[in-house]
Amino acid sequence: MEELIKKIKSKQELSPDAEEYFYSISKEKTFSKGTELIRQGQDVTKIYFVTDGILRSYCNDKNGKEHTLQFAIKNWWISDYIAIHNKKPATLNVECLKKSKVIEFNAKKLDEIFALFPEFEPFQRNVLERHVVSLHQRILNQLQLTGAEKYDLFLEQYPDIEQNIRNYHIASYLGLTQESLSRIRVEKAKK
Amino acid sequence: MEELIKKIKSKQELSPDAEEYFYSISKEKTFSKGTELIRQGQDVTKIYFVTDGILRSYCNDKNGKEHTLQFAIKNWWISDYIAIHNKKPATLNVECLKKSKVIEFNAKKLDEIFALFPEFEPFQRNVLERHVVSLHQRILNQLQLTGAEKYDLFLEQYPDIEQNIRNYHIASYLGLTQESLSRIRVEKAKK
Repeated sequence: MEELIKKIKSKQELSPDAEEYFYSISKEKTFSKGTELIRQGQDVTKIYFVTDGILRSYCNDKNGKEHTLQFAIKNWWISDYIAIHNKKPATLNVECLKKSKVIEFNAKKLDEIFALFPEFEPFQRNVLERHVVSLHQRILNQLQLTGAEKYDLFLEQYPDIEQNIRNYHIASYLGLTQESLSRIRVEKAKK
Repeated sequence: MEELIKKIKSKQELSPDAEEYFYSISKEKTFSKGTELIRQGQDVTKIYFVTDGILRSYCNDKNGKEHTLQFAIKNWWISDYIAIHNKKPATLNVECLKKSKVIEFNAKKLDEIFALFPEFEPFQRNVLERHVVSLHQRILNQLQLTGAEKYDLFLEQYPDIEQNIRNYHIASYLGLTQESLSRIRVEKAKK
């Protein structure tokens, strides 16, 4: 938690009141591998900041196939923002892919923080801008890269993640079939 | 311009000074069809708010094939945010697909506005949050929908756009080949 506060303070000064409120709406938690923090169909009331471990958000399509929107590692935020923004039940699941430490925020109270303590705005704007840029890049990569190029980039972006996650997690993030991903790995091993 | 100011004021009060600064860093412009506002490789110094018409941002891959990141219609913002954020030359092109009216902002001065006039923050946070949600939804759609479903959704989201844009614009946005898109259209016409 101190690390996150320090990050925010690097953007903007925080009053003691603002800091106290920030603590009051959050809780440090540790979850074991496999824990589901958000489930499709349920109300979404929490936003998570990852301090250790790996979380994943994904949806199930009408045939039950999983599609991964995001992996969240240290210093990433994760939730179902579609549900929160549209005030609808979750369309995503969020699960822990290994034992993970997070700071859990009450989503509604986190949203109210900006009216109460506008000093949080520059930090949030920076988080959102970086997120937009990474999503733009992901869409462009998805459109223009070959399967093998997507996989290489994934290994670069998440260098330590592979030993902790399953083949189908990566395939469902890259939009590849598991068979294609296996072929790409075999080709890569030959080089 | 008055419409945009009104939109911002619906989120937050603006001081006369803030409003004056906002006017001072922007200019209303009309561009003819085909005008390129941003070109791959050049510095990106402008951000555009569309008041009429259609703009498109896209990149060329190493084989010269185009990939469309975004269509911007009335009330959308468009630029090369990857370039601005990373302080690198443009990786995208932005062009007018028909005669378009925009408000052109100096990107650097628009960024400075938040330190000078923090009252713009809630509006910007809302813009960014909505944009993140639409990008999440696009990635999930890209991963889970069939070509025909993607095309139907596109027509729903951009009901009046089709007569103004080319087949390959849509295909390059949906990640389909032009041949697949043509087949989808033929099937749809039969129904």
